[in-house]
Order: sequence, then C-alpha cells, then structure tokens
Amino acid sequence: MKNYKIIIQYDGTKYKGWQRLKNSDLTIQGKIEAVLSKMVEHKVEIHGSGRTDAGVHALSQTASFKIETPKTEKQIMDYLNRYLPDDIGIISVKEADERFHARLNVKSKTYQYRIWNSELPCIFERKYTTQITSTLDIERMKKAAEYLIGTHDFKAFCSNKKLKKSSVRTIDFIDIKRVENEVLITIQGNGFLHNMVRIICGTLVEIGLYKRETDSIPEILNFKIRENAGETLPAKGLTLLNVEY
Amino acid sequence: MKNYKIIIQYDGTKYKGWQRLKNSDLTIQGKIEAVLSKMVEHKVEIHGSGRTDAGVHALSQTASFKIETPKTEKQIMDYLNRYLPDDIGIISVKEADERFHARLNVKSKTYQYRIWNSELPCIFERKYTTQITSTLDIERMKKAAEYLIGTHDFKAFCSNKKLKKSSVRTIDFIDIKRVENEVLITIQGNGFLHNMVRIICGTLVEIGLYKRETDSIPEILNFKIRENAGETLPAKGLTLLNVEY
Repeated sequence: MKNYKIIIQYDGTKYKGWQRLKNSDLTIQGKIEAVLSKMVEHKVEIHGSGRTDAGVHALSQTASFKIETPKTEKQIMDYLNRYLPDDIGIISVKEADERFHARLNVKSKTYQYRIWNSELPCIFERKYTTQITSTLDIERMKKAAEYLIGTHDFKAFCSNKKLKKSSVRTIDFIDIKRVENEVLITIQGNGFLHNMVRIICGTLVEIGLYKRETDSIPEILNFKIRENAGETLPAKGLTLLNVEY
Repeated sequence: MKNYKIIIQYDGTKYKGWQRLKNSDLTIQGKIEAVLSKMVEHKVEIHGSGRTDAGVHALSQTASFKIETPKTEKQIMDYLNRYLPDDIGIISVKEADERFHARLNVKSKTYQYRIWNSELPCIFERKYTTQITSTLDIERMKKAAEYLIGTHDFKAFCSNKKLKKSSVRTIDFIDIKRVENEVLITIQGNGFLHNMVRIICGTLVEIGLYKRETDSIPEILNFKIRENAGETLPAKGLTLLNVEY
C-alpha cells in the first residue's frame, strides 16, 4: 500500500464541484476516482485539500490516495491524463509519506478572484472571470481588506447559516492589483468557510464601487450577520491557486 | 448612409468559420449581420478582412459595413455586445471614410499559432493551443522559416488544389519563440492561401522534431506540390492577431 500526493488542474465550468456526489458523475473527485480505480483494479478513495464549489477552477488543487497495485509515479500520471476529460489534468504525482493526508495536513490555501473590469467584452477569459463594467477604486478595496487580515470570526462571510463548527479563521494576506483590464484579488488563509472568498470579494467590490464605506468591515465582522456583508460573486471568477503544506 | 469599421474578437471553437453560410447560422459573419440588421431595421452586409476557417480564433478581425439608420459609434458597439453571443465581442466601432473596405484595403495580416509544447496537460488554454509533447528545436525552425520570408509562390502550402488565381504571396516576417510551455509562431504577410499558415506551421514543426531538414523548404517552394510540405495543424491553435491597413 503506497500513498501518493497529486496536484490537479481543472476548468470547473461544467462540474458540480470537487466533491463526489451520489447522483452525478460530474464532479472532479468522482472523475479522478473512477479512472484511478480502473487503473489499479480496486476501489480508490481520494482526499482533496478541500471542496471547491460548482463552477470554481483550480490551478493547483492537491489530493492524496493510497493504492495497493504497484505503479510508478509516471505510470499514474500518464494513465490519469490519458483517460481524464480534457478539462481536468494532473500536473504532478509524487509518492508521499504514509502519514500524508491532503486535507488534514493543509497549512494554508491561496485563492484568486479575477474581475474583468471593463466595458469591453472579455472573450477568451470569459469562463474564468466575472465582468464588472464600472471602474473599481482598488485603493479603497485595499484599505478595506486590511481589516480582514488576521484571525477573526468570519460568520458574516459564510453562506452556511447552520454552521455548527467554529467560524474563526486566519487570513494571512489579501493582495489586490490591476493588470490591464483585470482586477485580481488574491487571498491566502488557513481555511475558508462556505463561499467566504466570494462574499469577501463581493464586499470589497461594493466598497470599490462606493456603495459601502471602507471602514464598514469591522462592524460586519462584529455583528456576524450574513446580510450585512456583500453579495456572493459568481463561481466562475474564482480559482484555487495553491495549497500550502 | 454611413460607413463603419469594426474590430471583432472571437473564440472560434464552435463556429463554422467567419463566412456566412446558407445552411447554418453558426458563422461569425452571420451572427454579426443578424444583430446589425435587427438594430437598423434593414439588411446589412458586412465585409470582413477575409475568411477565417472553422475553429480559428481572432483577437482583432476587422470588418466594414454601411447603414442607413443614424446610430452613434457607442450605440452600435453597445447593441452588438448586448445581443451577440458571449464568444463574439466588438472591441471597437469607428466611422470610416466612405471608401474604406475591410477586405479590399488590407495591407497585411498577422496570425499566431500557439503550440503547447509539453507533456503536461493544458487545461485553461486547451481550446486555443495544439499540444505537441516532444520538445521542438526552435533554432531549427527559425532557420527554416528564413527561406519562407519574402515573395514566393506558396502553391505547395495551399490546401486548395484547384486554385485558379495566383498563389504568389509575400511574407514579411515569421517570429518563433518559446514562452514557458508554449512555442508561439507569429506570421505576417500580405495575404494567405487556404490553410497556408497551418501548413507552414506544420512543416516547421516537422523540422523542429527532426523529421525534415531545415533546408528542405526551397525545394518544397520550387516543386509546388502540396504533398511535399508538412501536415495541416489543427485549427484551434490558430488566431488572427491583427489586420493592418
């Protein structure tokens, strides 16, 4: 029994998210497990670093799994890339310590939200960006983002209202920059609640559009009420950039 | 009656090419004409700088057309972008001299062919690149490309064997460079025969893979036989970068 760590890229456009579902084979986990299980001729369960929602992309999602049949790293990578659909790709396969677990060992994750901030149409990147035609004031967004750095209860930035576990998380940094027609928001943290990145970005966008004050963030955090925060931005603009161990 | 010059971007993946067809509404020209005609309430014919084949993309295709109904440039642009599908976009609309004709006035065109030159899967750019897993020797390709610069009879690089018109064309430059996992071939010329860019790139790729000699080009040009040249690379890697007037 050997343990492997793999790094996966996917265009999430047509998938119902990372996590395997009973009634659909349109999940990334489900697709990879099916191909792996066929290769080794026994059932394989893979553990992702965490879920990504329907329509969210990944540049570097990480997963781990154990298999009984002896295979080299290259054999695993070639087989997966041969039989996976063309919107899911494996960019690394490494044998890992037997104790390595892609979810339990996560130190932090980095997400990027891409906003096409122009009235011009976005043709080639349309599936990976969300368009906002009015110009965003990113200096305002940067000021507001500072209030989110550090350890806070992010209950107001979570779409799951019945969350029973702790909603305290730590954000290491939020980087906001303009690159040609795009505004890129990159967020690293030790963990993210359901839709947390998309709600944070939605709130920052409202601040960048002068619909909200930059210093409204502390109050949103304190009151812990979802409705006080901004809208959840669409899934297609979000990419899981990296998982750190 | 006013004359307009428009610049169009499109992801050609699902289209049967630029040129309007009788039996299909899946052409870029057809889509734009339909929306324009609806806007001005009379039939509008647009003239593209030239055709692009099924599956070929454009970063900056140019077209001209005349309309009778008075409309501002902004009205035309907004209307088109509102009603065109999300894989076709108008990035510029300018009133033009009444004698301007997007096809007849072309000075040159610039195409780019994108090769994903890696064994790794290409997820996010998969629709705009062609994968070649073996490493291309681009120094060999550059040497070979020099033989193509200038004015030649490109009959061997044309897939239309019944061509009655002249197959003499002038290539201004061929630029070949590696950018991370991609090899980019950029070609500018005063006109291109059917599939000429894709056959030139296919021939250069065979040279880059040591399947052909660098100095085989003059002979291919001289003999004017299509079979002597390389394969036609897939449409999806090709983008019309720009049209010069």
